Amino acid sequence: MSINAVIGQSGGPTAVINQSMVGVVQGLRQGGFKGTIFGMRHGVSGLVKDDLVDLTSIDDARLDRVAASPSAGLGSTREKPDQAYCERILAACQKHSIGLFFYIGGNDSSDTCRIVNELAKSKGIELRCFHVPKTVDNDLMENDHTPGFPSAARFVAMACAADGLDNASIPGVKINVIMGRHAGFLTAASALARDISTAGAPHLIYVPEVAFDTDRFVADVAAALKSEGRCQVAVSEGIQNAAGESIGATLIKSGQVDDHGNVQLSGSGALGDALSDLLKEKLPPAPSGKAHRVRADTFGYLQRCWPDASPIDQAEARGSGRFAASLALGGDVDGSIAITRVHAPGSGQPYAAAYKRVELTAVAAKTRHLPSEYIKGHHDVSDAFMDYCRPLVGELPRLERL
Amino acid sequence: MSINAVIGQSGGPTAVINQSMVGVVQGLRQGGFKGTIFGMRHGVSGLVKDDLVDLTSIDDARLDRVAASPSAGLGSTREKPDQAYCERILAACQKHSIGLFFYIGGNDSSDTCRIVNELAKSKGIELRCFHVPKTVDNDLMENDHTPGFPSAARFVAMACAADGLDNASIPGVKINVIMGRHAGFLTAASALARDISTAGAPHLIYVPEVAFDTDRFVADVAAALKSEGRCQVAVSEGIQNAAGESIGATLIKSGQVDDHGNVQLSGSGALGDALSDLLKEKLPPAPSGKAHRVRADTFGYLQRCWPDASPIDQAEARGSGRFAASLALGGDVDGSIAITRVHAPGSGQPYAAAYKRVELTAVAAKTRHLPSEYIKGHHDVSDAFMDYCRPLVGELPRLERL
Repeated sequence: MSINAVIGQSGGPTAVINQSMVGVVQGLRQGGFKGTIFGMRHGVSGLVKDDLVDLTSIDDARLDRVAASPSAGLGSTREKPDQAYCERILAACQKHSIGLFFYIGGNDSSDTCRIVNELAKSKGIELRCFHVPKTVDNDLMENDHTPGFPSAARFVAMACAADGLDNASIPGVKINVIMGRHAGFLTAASALARDISTAGAPHLIYVPEVAFDTDRFVADVAAALKSEGRCQVAVSEGIQNAAGESIGATLIKSGQVDDHGNVQLSGSGALGDALSDLLKEKLPPAPSGKAHRVRADTFGYLQRCWPDASPIDQAEARGSGRFAASLALGGDVDGSIAITRVHAPGSGQPYAAAYKRVELTAVAAKTRHLPSEYIKGHHDVSDAFMDYCRPLVGELPRLERL
Repeated sequence: MSINAVIGQSGGPTAVINQSMVGVVQGLRQGGFKGTIFGMRHGVSGLVKDDLVDLTSIDDARLDRVAASPSAGLGSTREKPDQAYCERILAACQKHSIGLFFYIGGNDSSDTCRIVNELAKSKGIELRCFHVPKTVDNDLMENDHTPGFPSAARFVAMACAADGLDNASIPGVKINVIMGRHAGFLTAASALARDISTAGAPHLIYVPEVAFDTDRFVADVAAALKSEGRCQVAVSEGIQNAAGESIGATLIKSGQVDDHGNVQLSGSGALGDALSDLLKEKLPPAPSGKAHRVRADTFGYLQRCWPDASPIDQAEARGSGRFAASLALGGDVDGSIAITRVHAPGSGQPYAAAYKRVELTAVAAKTRHLPSEYIKGHHDVSDAFMDYCRPLVGELPRLERL
């Protein structure tokens, strides 16, 4: 049988998405796969345009260099194929005698995988589809955590720790806007900053899972200023009010909408600036009588591409790809790869991860949220979250002030 | 003679400002200084309020931990003392029998140093003032470069390299706003990204020293999109038009003004968002007929506090502090410390730095700009700048795409 394989990367890139791509390639090659291994340029949009790259015999040293580099080395896409588009994907697979389809991405990408897989089955075409998880948002069902999240969490922890010292140095209010459209995991990871810095920041953490009330926010900041003399805020780009409306989307007037119907929250400082303006207007003045110093930074794309990935994330992203390849070579299956944790967080056992296969339908187009036991009150995370998150990010520097 | 010493940190903190503080403390102690070594809490504002910390016998291990941490460990201040304030500073020095005054900061801080020094001289008071350089803007006269700049340049280079791969992965326009109110050194450092990544970004670099024209900007971006299929822009927060008006200040409606009369450019995404909106409005559509994807990130405070400093910067910041201490102990002088380069950039000789004393008046309240030989055309830097900047930032990761 002369079947070939194709690998694609989709959605917002991460610091380790190339590890997964390389894991699939090396897993296939070392598993004795005899066909051609194609890479899609810019995901399925490259596949349907015959924009493919041959990865079959690319040397391991080059693969390792690409694996260690952030962002999608093959190119990524934001396109969300509909049924007609998926027919074209299937036709392209047939044209290139592709029997194995690997797609590395988040919940939108797993849905593309599911549609193509079902379409092939319904037509009796021999094509098996595998979704390899990837998202800094950490919002895939069935996964303890997803490749990309630990490295982004590492960045956020280091950023909030260092910025917390900056905020202690010139006191005032500092708002840091963190990625996560629907899930608060990455914003919650800001709490790791308290482990590694003597600044005690962030003082307030707002995730999309807790309804955001602007008046309560102003009161929270005022209270922190009173007790700490300063206030560092970690806030998710995805915060929403009690009616479920995105605070950001209502504030960003000039927002672009992507093919998935999502309003642009990343790549703009508008939410941070709007929260800043709100505080400048409503906060009572400092004891000196002057207005409080209020600043906002939006961590932006650096969260997902910073070239200092978590070593655990690198290994697991590679492992997810290899596991997908071994599944594909091992039998007549398809599915999504999920990462599980061998010992429960807080069990006292050393951290260890394992991989499992789950049905594409269990992951596709679904969103996992920050569990309620990881949330403490309306502006903090719990010890259980810290136990969950701490082992993922790798060793962090310790920062100290006088 | 029982004279004491006092050390303060002022202005925007950096990743290595604590190295300089520790350099002064250790330089004094190892040089046989017998008096008390005070630290000012939040610069001169702490000094006049008697908010001092005794650094005389703090152990070296703790000092080294603080030195390795970003931000001002003693606290910093944005206050710019006038003559009356400087009288209070002088009175506080007399109260605490202070004969040596060390102030770590930029050109505003060196001016405070100068005023206090002159005031003491005019009154016959024995007080000698030393300014130790610090600024990520790299805009101090007499210095080849300033402590803080190499680490910030390292951050900017890594950020633009990684983000350049992100931009190659999902093509579009990406604007990165970089610190530097009057001087373009830090924005220029974005060009180092081309050394370490195969993405070839940034494609356009705009510094305050070259008049910024919005129509020409739109045309530049359109041309890059045509030739490269994407465009990463590095733009200084301090860009100004031909009339010398700050583009940022004219766009930021809700801007706070600090005690120095400066409009807030950092801690807001407004400039990036405004440039984004301009491109969304004026760029011709992509070949697909769709609008180009346009995003903006403002690197913000992370540039000045990221906890992965350049090793050369750490050593030189420490060295500047020690040099100030040795000068102070060695004779009846005052002044500002400057870093010089032993061999000219591009000479082929290995990089080496030296310290010298310059008059406070040579540095105080003056601004150094990016020399014209470091600028190429209206949106790039020269090879001479690359030779100048490359040795400062330390080893960088190499990033590669397929």
